[in-house]
Amino acid sequence: MQRLKERIMADGIVKGNDILKVDNFLNHQLDVDFLNEIGKEFWEHFKDKEITRILTIEASGIAVAAITAQYFHVPVVFAKKLDSKNLDDEVYVSQVHSFTRDRSYEIKVAQKYLSSSDRILIIDDFLAQGNAVMGLKDIIEQAGATLVGAGIVVEKGFQPGGAKLRQAGVDLYSLVIIKEMKDGRIVFA
Amino acid sequence: MQRLKERIMADGIVKGNDILKVDNFLNHQLDVDFLNEIGKEFWEHFKDKEITRILTIEASGIAVAAITAQYFHVPVVFAKKLDSKNLDDEVYVSQVHSFTRDRSYEIKVAQKYLSSSDRILIIDDFLAQGNAVMGLKDIIEQAGATLVGAGIVVEKGFQPGGAKLRQAGVDLYSLVIIKEMKDGRIVFA
Repeated sequence: MQRLKERIMADGIVKGNDILKVDNFLNHQLDVDFLNEIGKEFWEHFKDKEITRILTIEASGIAVAAITAQYFHVPVVFAKKLDSKNLDDEVYVSQVHSFTRDRSYEIKVAQKYLSSSDRILIIDDFLAQGNAVMGLKDIIEQAGATLVGAGIVVEKGFQPGGAKLRQAGVDLYSLVIIKEMKDGRIVFA
Repeated sequence: MQRLKERIMADGIVKGNDILKVDNFLNHQLDVDFLNEIGKEFWEHFKDKEITRILTIEASGIAVAAITAQYFHVPVVFAKKLDSKNLDDEVYVSQVHSFTRDRSYEIKVAQKYLSSSDRILIIDDFLAQGNAVMGLKDIIEQAGATLVGAGIVVEKGFQPGGAKLRQAGVDLYSLVIIKEMKDGRIVFA
């Protein structure tokens, strides 16, 4: 997606060789008009796949998933990371290890919001190690639902997540793939 | 907002005398078409206020803030709750106590995403004790920006947050106010 490459070149901040900050439109501040362009792009790719539900993970996946869902007219479900008094007892649970935060955590989805007849599109902002998407895939399998594909805004191609998911048979659509980050410079695949 | 009352009556689940779960359209599963009706309602109320930015708090405020921002064509900034390697060093910080989770936590906003010329609308899903909104108000004051008002989807009128904010001079617009919850029954104000 050319417009996204340009936006990342203009606004992305590279820290070291692996951290890309796109806080000013995707991860902290949200440019909702631009998120609509992203949502439309996911719609163009997956529109014929009879998606019934979009699944993401809190917190930074929520905005792009909600905006994208407007094109599909389907509900979003976001997996929760924290224990909450308010969550149902009957939940699907999976373990995710976050390298960014250097810890493992549980993700949870109430069972009643996924059914075996669902055809599910995963949406997330970043793909690096692929652990969050693998956790969501695990939950979809627990529900007996169909994982139709995964739409990712930024894939870090130099980390193993993309290869892992493609090997697992996931229809992975990344809007941009970063091949390398070095000395503040971004090289797209 | 009559449609919201009906939706809460149809889909809300009351636990005890103080917990209302609206997980099937607002807090876990997101009905984005209905969130658009909510966003339009906030737009109708605040459209003449020259809003330049919407401020919310992760995670469950993000979806309603992002959908609402489409009507105002302004960016959303969401305050972060967790420490992250990726957040800027220069942040505004405030303390919030959550009764739901029974603990205090810090909320943070990168300084560069709020300026003293900003006219800010706070958007959040629930108002109970009012501590999250007071924390956001504190951050807006640290930035020297103007708090124009707060749009809340569900105010628990039997808890002190609404009175606290109105006394503090906040233009508070709650789409519904719940007067009482008892034995699974909801009474609107």
